[in-house]
Amino acid sequence: MKPINDTFLRALKREQTDYTPVWLMRQAGRYLPEYNATRARLGSFLALAKCPEAACEVTLQPVDRFGLDAAILFSDILTVPDAMGLGLSFVAGEGPVFAKPVQSEEAVAALDVPDMEETLGYVTEAVRVIRRELNNRVPLIGFSGSPFTLACYMIEGGSSKDFATVKKMMYTRPDLLERILDVNARAVTAYLNAQIKAGTQALQVFDTWGGALADGCFERFSLRYMKQIIDGLIHEHDGQKVPVIIFTKGGGLWLEQMAACGADCVGLDWTVNLAKARRRVNDAVSLQGNLDPAVLFADEAAIRREVRRVIDSFGPVGKGGHVFNLGHGINQHTDPEAVRILVDEVHTYSRRMHEL
Amino acid sequence: MKPINDTFLRALKREQTDYTPVWLMRQAGRYLPEYNATRARLGSFLALAKCPEAACEVTLQPVDRFGLDAAILFSDILTVPDAMGLGLSFVAGEGPVFAKPVQSEEAVAALDVPDMEETLGYVTEAVRVIRRELNNRVPLIGFSGSPFTLACYMIEGGSSKDFATVKKMMYTRPDLLERILDVNARAVTAYLNAQIKAGTQALQVFDTWGGALADGCFERFSLRYMKQIIDGLIHEHDGQKVPVIIFTKGGGLWLEQMAACGADCVGLDWTVNLAKARRRVNDAVSLQGNLDPAVLFADEAAIRREVRRVIDSFGPVGKGGHVFNLGHGINQHTDPEAVRILVDEVHTYSRRMHEL
Repeated sequence: MKPINDTFLRALKREQTDYTPVWLMRQAGRYLPEYNATRARLGSFLALAKCPEAACEVTLQPVDRFGLDAAILFSDILTVPDAMGLGLSFVAGEGPVFAKPVQSEEAVAALDVPDMEETLGYVTEAVRVIRRELNNRVPLIGFSGSPFTLACYMIEGGSSKDFATVKKMMYTRPDLLERILDVNARAVTAYLNAQIKAGTQALQVFDTWGGALADGCFERFSLRYMKQIIDGLIHEHDGQKVPVIIFTKGGGLWLEQMAACGADCVGLDWTVNLAKARRRVNDAVSLQGNLDPAVLFADEAAIRREVRRVIDSFGPVGKGGHVFNLGHGINQHTDPEAVRILVDEVHTYSRRMHEL
Repeated sequence: MKPINDTFLRALKREQTDYTPVWLMRQAGRYLPEYNATRARLGSFLALAKCPEAACEVTLQPVDRFGLDAAILFSDILTVPDAMGLGLSFVAGEGPVFAKPVQSEEAVAALDVPDMEETLGYVTEAVRVIRRELNNRVPLIGFSGSPFTLACYMIEGGSSKDFATVKKMMYTRPDLLERILDVNARAVTAYLNAQIKAGTQALQVFDTWGGALADGCFERFSLRYMKQIIDGLIHEHDGQKVPVIIFTKGGGLWLEQMAACGADCVGLDWTVNLAKARRRVNDAVSLQGNLDPAVLFADEAAIRREVRRVIDSFGPVGKGGHVFNLGHGINQHTDPEAVRILVDEVHTYSRRMHEL
């Protein structure tokens, strides 16, 4: 069933729209007082992510408040390795921690694709609840971490500044890393297909750490496995195409390769020039991004000016497609009023780029 | 006076050499036991940087141990803002901290170029001591932080993950940031010219944080001020050209602009493909880099293989110039034996790329 506001899906498919649709990575997050209230009620981030009704509540909050053009499932990229039995927890001030990091040959051999219904049923249930509550107002985006990004956390056992353990494995035992990446790719494929069947209308693969890889290594250890996922996805459900976005932070040098992997849209961080990016991919995919999230710390005039700069940089939409977004997740110290200004400016100013 | 081993200087000037010269960013550092011994004797990092004889000692340690093709002055990029009176200290586990961050209009107005001899005489004295002790074996590199990178620390008051304070100033009061950057550029110009007069034979400007800037902002707030410095440098001393390297971590998207700013060489991090980079700059500058520092955590076979990959990627040197380096500073947990292997492989394997 087509959403009432399908601008976002049309932009992903490079169809004509009246204005540039906008959503924000991490739009349901700690910068919103209503999010913090729900989270406090649930007690923890993981409890929130694992309760379908609460996940639905926070998913809808920014859509209701700002009139965004898409909702994104509230969840975490680490649900998949958690489902593999690695023991995920969140430690205050340190971020995610896995009790059983995957560092030995034995640990790698023991990895397997988890049973989706048994281990990740709470996510597909959240998708169903959100779709029902959204009542078709705007499309719902599902998502996952990329196989490499998941592997970073699984191997390091948590966050890392230099990925020393992952990279040591990559340079000395690439076979072990490739086995992890293959399991991850198969698990993510099953996970995203389950999300599609439950009702997500577009997907994003977050490759948060692919940009830490050396040239050559990115293609071999990150992009290749995102392509494996895209090759295994359903792509159509309920008579509608389910577009796929891939986003590699720091991936601007590899745009051509990313655009050729089968995704419908490539997300860009703020270091990339949108006009040049568009020429490089020759409008064969749509582009998402790419405002510096720090712009939202500025005053109204600056926010409106920088939003216009992004829209101007993409230029007249023509046969291309542009989804407005930040170049990375919204910062938790952002004033919600700044988001209201951003959405207003995107919706009003972008119309001139959509006239035939 | 020409150094006995001038391979490094010749590569920077794109002259013919027998092999690819190599030095490593942060080559005098905590991965070396002899460095830690000297530092322990001096009591602190700042005390070490401010004692010309001790700075000389640690500068020579990696050159003596590994047979590197250049020495780099042991110092810190924050000596310049320290000389401006901002009160630099190093807090264990937190990195550099400025007692008086530059955040108000008054603080910006009060900034001025410090008197070089009075405030930074210890650096030029270290240059003279090192040149004497090096006894012309290999060239000595001088350096500074870029105006934008210095401004990041000056405005944030220390390290930062998202540069929220700097960027808020940039987007709302660019005039204030530009005033800081202009003072920094003039101070760095005077500082580097003083280093040249004291005897440094090449220079590198470290733009560690330029890659955090949005497209457009990089050119306006970082590259422009590196060009201002290069325009104001002496460039020749004692009858010899003093080549200048600029290095922006994460700057791979802006290579063409960087190559056109007057520098002799552009440093590249490991995300950049050397063959493509060379085509993009058309051999108009030499290139430095770009091994992933994490390769040094791997075993000997992997280190030799990855070193060869970098050298192969640059290809036959011809009319170009290649200085082998890491794509970022060496990690403190590196085994010195890994560096010995790296240097050996660069010196032996690269010879085939230098045959006419």
